[in-house]
Amino acid sequence: MSKYQHIKQSAYEANMQLPKLGLVLFTFGNVSAADRELGVFAIKPSGVPYSDLSPEEMVIVDFEGNTVEGSLRPSSDTKTHAVLYKHWSDINGIVHTHSTYATSWAQSQRCIPIYGTTHADHLTADVPCAPPMDDKMIRGNYEYETGFQIINHFEQEGLDYKETEMVLVGNHAPFTWGKTAEKAVYNSAVLEAVAQMAYLTEQINSKAPRLKDSLIKKHFERKHGPDSYYGQ
Amino acid sequence: MSKYQHIKQSAYEANMQLPKLGLVLFTFGNVSAADRELGVFAIKPSGVPYSDLSPEEMVIVDFEGNTVEGSLRPSSDTKTHAVLYKHWSDINGIVHTHSTYATSWAQSQRCIPIYGTTHADHLTADVPCAPPMDDKMIRGNYEYETGFQIINHFEQEGLDYKETEMVLVGNHAPFTWGKTAEKAVYNSAVLEAVAQMAYLTEQINSKAPRLKDSLIKKHFERKHGPDSYYGQ
Amino acid sequence: MSKYQHIKQSAYEANMQLPKLGLVLFTFGNVSAADRELGVFAIKPSGVPYSDLSPEEMVIVDFEGNTVEGSLRPSSDTKTHAVLYKHWSDINGIVHTHSTYATSWAQSQRCIPIYGTTHADHLTADVPCAPPMDDKMIRGNYEYETGFQIINHFEQEGLDYKETEMVLVGNHAPFTWGKTAEKAVYNSAVLEAVAQMAYLTEQINSKAPRLKDSLIKKHFERKHGPDSYYGQ
Amino acid sequence: MSKYQHIKQSAYEANMQLPKLGLVLFTFGNVSAADRELGVFAIKPSGVPYSDLSPEEMVIVDFEGNTVEGSLRPSSDTKTHAVLYKHWSDINGIVHTHSTYATSWAQSQRCIPIYGTTHADHLTADVPCAPPMDDKMIRGNYEYETGFQIINHFEQEGLDYKETEMVLVGNHAPFTWGKTAEKAVYNSAVLEAVAQMAYLTEQINSKAPRLKDSLIKKHFERKHGPDSYYGQ
Repeated sequence: MSKYQHIKQSAYEANMQLPKLGLVLFTFGNVSAADRELGVFAIKPSGVPYSDLSPEEMVIVDFEGNTVEGSLRPSSDTKTHAVLYKHWSDINGIVHTHSTYATSWAQSQRCIPIYGTTHADHLTADVPCAPPMDDKMIRGNYEYETGFQIINHFEQEGLDYKETEMVLVGNHAPFTWGKTAEKAVYNSAVLEAVAQMAYLTEQINSKAPRLKDSLIKKHFERKHGPDSYYGQ
Repeated sequence: MSKYQHIKQSAYEANMQLPKLGLVLFTFGNVSAADRELGVFAIKPSGVPYSDLSPEEMVIVDFEGNTVEGSLRPSSDTKTHAVLYKHWSDINGIVHTHSTYATSWAQSQRCIPIYGTTHADHLTADVPCAPPMDDKMIRGNYEYETGFQIINHFEQEGLDYKETEMVLVGNHAPFTWGKTAEKAVYNSAVLEAVAQMAYLTEQINSKAPRLKDSLIKKHFERKHGPDSYYGQ
Repeated sequence: MSKYQHIKQSAYEANMQLPKLGLVLFTFGNVSAADRELGVFAIKPSGVPYSDLSPEEMVIVDFEGNTVEGSLRPSSDTKTHAVLYKHWSDINGIVHTHSTYATSWAQSQRCIPIYGTTHADHLTADVPCAPPMDDKMIRGNYEYETGFQIINHFEQEGLDYKETEMVLVGNHAPFTWGKTAEKAVYNSAVLEAVAQMAYLTEQINSKAPRLKDSLIKKHFERKHGPDSYYGQ
Repeated sequence: MSKYQHIKQSAYEANMQLPKLGLVLFTFGNVSAADRELGVFAIKPSGVPYSDLSPEEMVIVDFEGNTVEGSLRPSSDTKTHAVLYKHWSDINGIVHTHSTYATSWAQSQRCIPIYGTTHADHLTADVPCAPPMDDKMIRGNYEYETGFQIINHFEQEGLDYKETEMVLVGNHAPFTWGKTAEKAVYNSAVLEAVAQMAYLTEQINSKAPRLKDSLIKKHFERKHGPDSYYGQ
C-alpha cells in the first residue's frame, strides 16, 4: 500500500463532498490534502468526473509542484496549491471551485462585505478579492503566479491566512483552505452561503450597513476565541 | 428512561426537519421543545451534525439557562431560548436558523412587508426586524441579551407574540416559535417562503403596495379566527 | 365503490404532482377534477399534508359548492373552483398554488409580459392579473367572489378561458385550469417557469421588448392551431 | 437490428441527460446525434415525456429534414437540426433546450458577456445572440429558417462554429452543438451555468468589466490549445 494512502483517502473524501454540497458542475473543482512530514499533497486528477474517482487515482505532488506518485495528470490548478502549501505552513487542505455565488462575486471584482453574523462566525474581515493578474504573470507560469497573486494580496492587505481562510481571485473563482481538507471544503460551503446572502442583502437594501465591530468580534470569538463556547 | 424523554424526542424530530426543509447548512440552526410543568426544555447540543444526532443527546435546560440533564454542551443560543420561554408563557417550541432569504432580510435590517395572502394566512403584521443590540449588550451576556432584544422590540412595537410567531434580529438571523416545536419549525419554513416572495415582489415591482387591510383580516381569520374554516 | 371513484383518483394523482413539481410548500395548493355528466368535482380535503393523502379522502362537491360525498371538509378554496366550473363549461380540472415566482408576480399586481416562445407555445396573451377585490367582496362570500373576480376580469379584458388557461389574482396567487386535472397541473408548472424567466428577463434587460406578433402566432399555432405539428 | 442503432442509443442517452442536469421542464428540449457516413441523424420524437423514451423510439432523419426511419413524428425543431448539420460539417450532436438562465438572456436579446474564466475555459467570445427573425422568415418555413438565422449570424459576426459551440436565438432559447451529442449536452450545461453567473455578476456590480484578453486567451488554450494541459 502506498505510504500516501492516508492523504489520498482524505483528498478523495473531500473531493466527493463538492458535488454533494452543490459546489461543482462536472469537474469544475478540486481538493488537495497535505502531509507536512512527507512534504507532499494528494490532489484530484485533471478532468476526471467525480462519479469515476477512486482514492487510488489521487496524484501525489510535492510543494514545488512535481508529481511524486500517480499515473494520471494532476489537476491543472496543482501549482496554485503547491505555492500556497509552500508559503503558508499551517494549512493542510485547499479547495478550488467555481461555485455559483462566490464566482459571481469574483467576476464582479468586489470583496464580499461582512453583513451578518453568519459571516462573522467564520471570519472578521470582508472576503478578500485579489485583483486579476497583470498580463506578464498571465502569459508566464499562470497557475504558479495565481498562488503568488493570492499571497501578495494577503500581505498587502495585512490579512492573516490563519484567520481568513478564503479568497476570491478577480475574474476567476474562489480558493479556500484550512487545517484539514475537510475544513477547507467546509469553508467553501460557508463562502458560497455567505456570498449568496450578501448578494440578496444588497438587493433588498442597497444601503445595508456592514456589521458593526462589536458584533464581528463577539461572533468570531464565540466560535474561535480562547473562551469559545461553540461546539463540544 | 429519562422523565424528559418526550421533549427530547420532540426536539430531536423537530431538529431533523430543518435540513429536510432546506433551512440549514451544516449545524447553523437549533430547535428546542419545552415542558411547562417540568419547567425545562430540550435543545440540540452545540455543533453536532444533524446526521449524527439522536434523541438521547438532546440537552435538558431550565428557564434560567442552566443545564439539568445531558453530557453535551447545549446550543450556543440556549440562553436566548431560555429568556423567551421564561417571559412568554404560551410557547413550547423555538427555532433559530440562518435560512437564506430570512437571514438576508435580517442583514438588510428591514421588516418584511406583508405583500400577499401567503403572508396574511399566518400573521397580520409585517415580519418585525429587531435592531442590532447596542455595544454594551453585545459585550455582556450576549445570547441572554438577544432574548431581551426580541422581547423589548415586541413591547415597543405593540406586537403580540401569540399572533406574530417570528422575528428577524438585525444583522443576525430569524427566530420563530409556537405552541409546539413542530409548529415553530413550520413557522420557520413559512417565514423563508414569505421572505423569498417579498424579495421577488420588490424586484418585479419596486412600487408594489402592501396588502390592504380587508384582505389581511380575511385571510388571517380564515385560518385563525373564531370562525376559521381552514383545515379539519 | 363510489361512483365518483374515477375523479377521486384523478384529483388525487394530480394533487400528488404538485409537491413533485416543486409547486407547493406544506398544504399551500389544491387540485380538483370534474365530471360534467355527474355535475360534480373531486377536490383535496383542507389542510391535509400531501404525504397523508389517499384517493378515498377526496371530497365530492357540486357546482354550487355543496359537499355531496366525503367525511372531510373540502379545501377552503372550494367555492372558487365551483364558480369557475359553473360558468366555464369546457374545463374539467382546476389548480390553485402559491408557487414562488407566479405568486410574486401576483403580489406585484402585474401581468406577466410575453417575452419569449416558451410563453407563446402556451398562450398568446400576457398572463392576466386580476386586481384585488373591493372590500365589500372580501368581507362577503370571499372564495365565491374570487371566482367571479377571475371571470369578470376575463370578460373585461376580452380573454377566452379556453385559450388563456391561467390567471394571477392580485396580492394573492395563481389559478390554472384545463380540459383535465392533469393538464391544469401542467399549466401551473408552465406558468411558474414562464414567471421565473420573465422576472430574469427584466433583470437582465429592463427594456426587453415583448415578443413580436408574428412569433406569438407562429409558436401558438405550432402547438395548438388546426395545422399543429407538435407532439404525436 | 437497425443500422442506425448506434446513433439512436447515443441520442437516447444524451436526451436522458437533460432532465438529470436540470435543463428541461416536461418535453421542452431535444438532442440529436448524427452519423456523417450514413448522412442521417437520430432525434427525439416530438412531445414524448423523457420518462417514456426508449432508444428504439428515436427518429432517423436525413440532412434535408426527411424522416428515414421511425414511426413517430420527430421533434418539431428537426429542420433546425438538419440545416445546421448540412452546413456545418464538423458537428455530430445538437441540443435545444429552454433552460432557465440561457433562455432569459435570449428573451433579453443580449449576448452574454465574457466575465470570467468559467466562460473562457469554453469559448473566447461573448455567447452570441442572433436577433429574432423577420416576419417573412417566421411565416415561412420557420424551423428551417431558424437554422439559417443562426448560420447567417455566425457569418456576419465572423464567428467560427468550431470554437463557439453555442448560440442564443433572440426571444426564443439556446442551441448548442459539438463533436458528439454528449459534448453538445455538456455545452448546454456549461452555457446555463455561465448564463446564471453573468446575470449575478451584473446584479452585484453593474459596471463589472469583461475579462481581459490575456486571460481569455490563457484559459481557452489551457483547455483547447495545441499545448493544452487540462484533462488526461
